[in-house]
Amino acid sequence: MPLYQYFNGEISPIDKALFQTNDLGLLRGYGLFDYFRTYNGVPFRWDDYWQRFENSAKRLKLPLSITQQETAKVLADLHALSEEPEVAFRFVLTGGYAADSVHVVKPNFLIRTEALPQDNPAGRLKGIKVLPYEYVRDLPEVKSTNYVHMVLMADQMKQQQAADLLFYKDGEVSELTRSNLFLIRDNVLITPDTNILHGVTRKVILELAQPFFEIQVRKVTYDELMNAEEVFTTSTTKWVMPIVQIGNHTVGNGQAGKKSLFLQDRFMDLVKTWGK
Amino acid sequence: MPLYQYFNGEISPIDKALFQTNDLGLLRGYGLFDYFRTYNGVPFRWDDYWQRFENSAKRLKLPLSITQQETAKVLADLHALSEEPEVAFRFVLTGGYAADSVHVVKPNFLIRTEALPQDNPAGRLKGIKVLPYEYVRDLPEVKSTNYVHMVLMADQMKQQQAADLLFYKDGEVSELTRSNLFLIRDNVLITPDTNILHGVTRKVILELAQPFFEIQVRKVTYDELMNAEEVFTTSTTKWVMPIVQIGNHTVGNGQAGKKSLFLQDRFMDLVKTWGK
Repeated sequence: MPLYQYFNGEISPIDKALFQTNDLGLLRGYGLFDYFRTYNGVPFRWDDYWQRFENSAKRLKLPLSITQQETAKVLADLHALSEEPEVAFRFVLTGGYAADSVHVVKPNFLIRTEALPQDNPAGRLKGIKVLPYEYVRDLPEVKSTNYVHMVLMADQMKQQQAADLLFYKDGEVSELTRSNLFLIRDNVLITPDTNILHGVTRKVILELAQPFFEIQVRKVTYDELMNAEEVFTTSTTKWVMPIVQIGNHTVGNGQAGKKSLFLQDRFMDLVKTWGK
Repeated sequence: MPLYQYFNGEISPIDKALFQTNDLGLLRGYGLFDYFRTYNGVPFRWDDYWQRFENSAKRLKLPLSITQQETAKVLADLHALSEEPEVAFRFVLTGGYAADSVHVVKPNFLIRTEALPQDNPAGRLKGIKVLPYEYVRDLPEVKSTNYVHMVLMADQMKQQQAADLLFYKDGEVSELTRSNLFLIRDNVLITPDTNILHGVTRKVILELAQPFFEIQVRKVTYDELMNAEEVFTTSTTKWVMPIVQIGNHTVGNGQAGKKSLFLQDRFMDLVKTWGK
């Protein structure tokens, strides 16, 4: 699989060293990214991902030097070079090179072609364990590159056989390290609306659930989470992933919830025919 | 000035692109740094800076593959190559390359040789304006690369003719974006002890002030700041920099305080003879 990357107008093999060492992404954590994949060879919900990427860039005041249409052509080129039926793309936009290590002059824009992630099919059927973690992401609506706590806690998660961290603060729950949170109680589907990144998969699930559930998009308390019948998380790589254990607390009967699996099926139906 | 950099054992010109694009510092903001300079050709308080660097690395669970002694030799080589009497050094330690963009395998260690920063001599004599900013750095005792708010606010600072942000939260003040905070009232020198990075210049100033001031290292409220006779900030590049304006509030009579300038003199005496 010959993967390639795009960097400020040039395409090169994926392992080529590209970044000079005075990049503000590297020196100051001043960067943002986005991540999406193809189904049937077609980027999934590309307009939504691009819009979010543009929004992150705007909030970090980083001008884009390429249009959505030009970028789509780059994606097609990278995809063709990969010789793979399906790929994932990672956008990274940093503050660029700065002589004074403070002021943005010209952002650096990278697109990495990546192999499809391992999908954890067992987790999607049986559900996963997560650890509650007191934290709110800084500038949560920006898909910034700040994931220090996720990397820092990786060992402890492994020790506790947990797949992820679930963020809460001041009695409210928000999101997981890289995915959104949903609760089901009776026939009500609830998802937090503050201190979160607006996930594209979250948006799709809200659309798919519309005919079947009462939907509440609002603040969610930790107590509600503890009393939910079903809990699941959504992301580009996780789809609809049931959560059956939160620290020492077992959700429902400890098995993947039926309504969660129903929504998972709806999502899989959608992506099976995406682009066809 | 031919500046060079050290990266995982190799020395190369400063503008060589060294980082592959799957570095965790770049993709996940998982990195830390340190920064110090020479006086009379000798790295200032090298043991203190190294100890802080080691502490940051330990807290982010990043093993160092080089000893202090080996690093000192690299610094000497980089300094000799620069052909400059004085230089600054920037250490950057990242989570390294990660195939899964999450787990640390082997950190990347970079040392950049940099030209001495502009010292803002006018600011040191007349004092600077800063903007109060509600924020506490994440993992404040780690000199992490997360400086998003500083870069984000750079334009607004310029518009308001402010030199820096002064962080406060829940009625307490902590530090500035890259420097520590001191208050003087009567003959008491006060500096916060929580939610701060332990600056080496801060430590030196506390040592130098010992014979002349009553020293209090403790939590400091925003109210105290508003009622201080003198305020100053300390860092490797700022030395002792008087603060005369905090947003709309004028400190004292709006001129650099005499006691602050006295401590500035003590610091300048120290560095003048450093290494001699």
